[in-house]
Amino acid sequence: MHDEPILLTPGPLTTSARVKQTLPQDWGSRDPAFVALTGRVLDGVREVAGAGADYAAVPVQGSGTFAVEAMLGTLVAPDVGVLVLVNGAYGQRIAEICRRIGRHHQVYEVAETEVHDMAELTRRLEDAPEIGFVAAVHCETTSGLLNPLAEIARTVREAGRELLVDSMSGFGALPIDASELAFAGLTASANKCLQGVPGLGFVLCRRELLDRCAGHAHSLVLDLYLQEQALAGDGQWRFTPPVQVMAALDAALAELAEEGGPSARLARYTENCDTLLAGMTQLGFVSALPRDRQAPVIVSFLEPQEGWFEFSRFYDALRQRGYAIYAGKMRQHGTFRVGTIGAITPETMHGFLEAVGAVITEMKQKLIA
Amino acid sequence: MHDEPILLTPGPLTTSARVKQTLPQDWGSRDPAFVALTGRVLDGVREVAGAGADYAAVPVQGSGTFAVEAMLGTLVAPDVGVLVLVNGAYGQRIAEICRRIGRHHQVYEVAETEVHDMAELTRRLEDAPEIGFVAAVHCETTSGLLNPLAEIARTVREAGRELLVDSMSGFGALPIDASELAFAGLTASANKCLQGVPGLGFVLCRRELLDRCAGHAHSLVLDLYLQEQALAGDGQWRFTPPVQVMAALDAALAELAEEGGPSARLARYTENCDTLLAGMTQLGFVSALPRDRQAPVIVSFLEPQEGWFEFSRFYDALRQRGYAIYAGKMRQHGTFRVGTIGAITPETMHGFLEAVGAVITEMKQKLIA
Repeated sequence: MHDEPILLTPGPLTTSARVKQTLPQDWGSRDPAFVALTGRVLDGVREVAGAGADYAAVPVQGSGTFAVEAMLGTLVAPDVGVLVLVNGAYGQRIAEICRRIGRHHQVYEVAETEVHDMAELTRRLEDAPEIGFVAAVHCETTSGLLNPLAEIARTVREAGRELLVDSMSGFGALPIDASELAFAGLTASANKCLQGVPGLGFVLCRRELLDRCAGHAHSLVLDLYLQEQALAGDGQWRFTPPVQVMAALDAALAELAEEGGPSARLARYTENCDTLLAGMTQLGFVSALPRDRQAPVIVSFLEPQEGWFEFSRFYDALRQRGYAIYAGKMRQHGTFRVGTIGAITPETMHGFLEAVGAVITEMKQKLIA
Repeated sequence: MHDEPILLTPGPLTTSARVKQTLPQDWGSRDPAFVALTGRVLDGVREVAGAGADYAAVPVQGSGTFAVEAMLGTLVAPDVGVLVLVNGAYGQRIAEICRRIGRHHQVYEVAETEVHDMAELTRRLEDAPEIGFVAAVHCETTSGLLNPLAEIARTVREAGRELLVDSMSGFGALPIDASELAFAGLTASANKCLQGVPGLGFVLCRRELLDRCAGHAHSLVLDLYLQEQALAGDGQWRFTPPVQVMAALDAALAELAEEGGPSARLARYTENCDTLLAGMTQLGFVSALPRDRQAPVIVSFLEPQEGWFEFSRFYDALRQRGYAIYAGKMRQHGTFRVGTIGAITPETMHGFLEAVGAVITEMKQKLIA
């Protein structure tokens, strides 16, 4: 009945038949079966990050930004400052949240195609002893840029500060090693590289820090401290969880393990991304980032400055052929985006490239006619 | 593969096959098809409350409490007070949110089996000119009590104050007429009487008030003003919506209309509730509320003070027979709860009562053995 395009987006994305099949079931949110499912999912999320018992995976209902706001509100005490590394809209959003919830912050911003200079970060931290936390975005989906998380973590640690990471669009595929990164908090989403459905985020919190965060949060529903207390008590959520979304994630985590874990998933996404980049280049498109800064999550392409191209018509024509792409978000360039994550393969990319070729021909012909 | 009990709970509850069948589908959250679906659902939610164009239905990702916190944070200016009517845990939660988000408030509390005295409410409002809002719970699922919403609305209006309503567990069945109640804000949930799945709430906001609420909210993600601005602009959510949960609600709203709207649904729930009360009384159980204060949403039964009864064993035995009931939440009595809402009928209740009868016999026999 419904037409269902292949989603080449940063999420919600294309999920597998197995994940979808778990959805049509009712679950009692306080029933032992669902309590067990919750425990299994939280263990699975920690495992993806190589996080031991020194970390808690705390779930947050809502979109990824709900988890980011919960992390900032709970882990950052009201009198401690945050230095936000910005090179795209998601870094800016962290700063916006800090402003809104009343957390003192500074911004270190570079261009959307650049990464931050670690020597400069060190200098800024030396100059600002009131800064307790550095907040960074792992994969900046504004452009598709991969920030150098390991380097950032090392610099922050050497400066004696705590690290907060928005890894929403990378978690499940990009390498994350909690024992090495030693972050204070890191956010993840159910519906990006984990390949579940949207409605749920997580914050991995270092326990010894979280244990000292009672009363910090600016919000009742976004208080990770109270949520973790509840889970540690009887395994229960404080407020009704999205039970179907959790069940889908349970299946998605099993599928991730069967695929070979995050490294195998990263290899598939990398192949998707390479196939896309090669094909689009051949079709005349130019990507906004150099390859070595490109995360295999989502690619920004510059909008052709030619008469035949108009994004909404390009979108509609691809949509009619069964592919949903994504609008651009970069400030200095007109771009559109194509995601390379989800239950898709290089074969999917070949089909998409064929559709793009046909659409270009069609749009150019219309221009002439 | 999974065993799936009938949920006799206040939500997540038993959904219909039709609602479930909409779930296994991917949706692009910024695709025109989903933007259209969002518009249709928001119109449907307003229609349930008889709300015209003077009201906005603003969606909030998360559980119902997320919507309650968003309503308080957005509609109540930081320098205006709230009088909270409390006769159960959900009223207390409103007060707790006010404390946490820094909204000045007073509490008018009565026993969990009682309703508030309107003359006393009037007096309290006369004595407190700094109070701008009265917050009330429609159906207090702590006990199952129906608060007299029309009377409360009249009293609040006559005192020249604004009304905020938590109608989470009643919306879709209990009568709500926005033009008569003239509330400032009212919260609803996708997964209670609307019979969708959990992960989503709504706040119906009177537009002329909401339009003056820029900058009030204590939170970025819970800012209803900004969410409504985005929807009014291009029909988009600010942050990724739970697309499958929205699609399920779209189907659930169509089903509600086909059933004959909230009044027909209320009639079915009332029959469920009457069947349950009659049967349980016959089996020796006593409900915690007089019938005229009982909403046909969820019923609290006093725990029998007899040797054979122990809640967790009672729960497990019913669960094995395919029914999930709900733990009690009242402070003065040991209770357990049985929901009467969802895609269930008096036939379901007859099956449940038979199971309860069998479980009683079994538990009493075990006591003797």
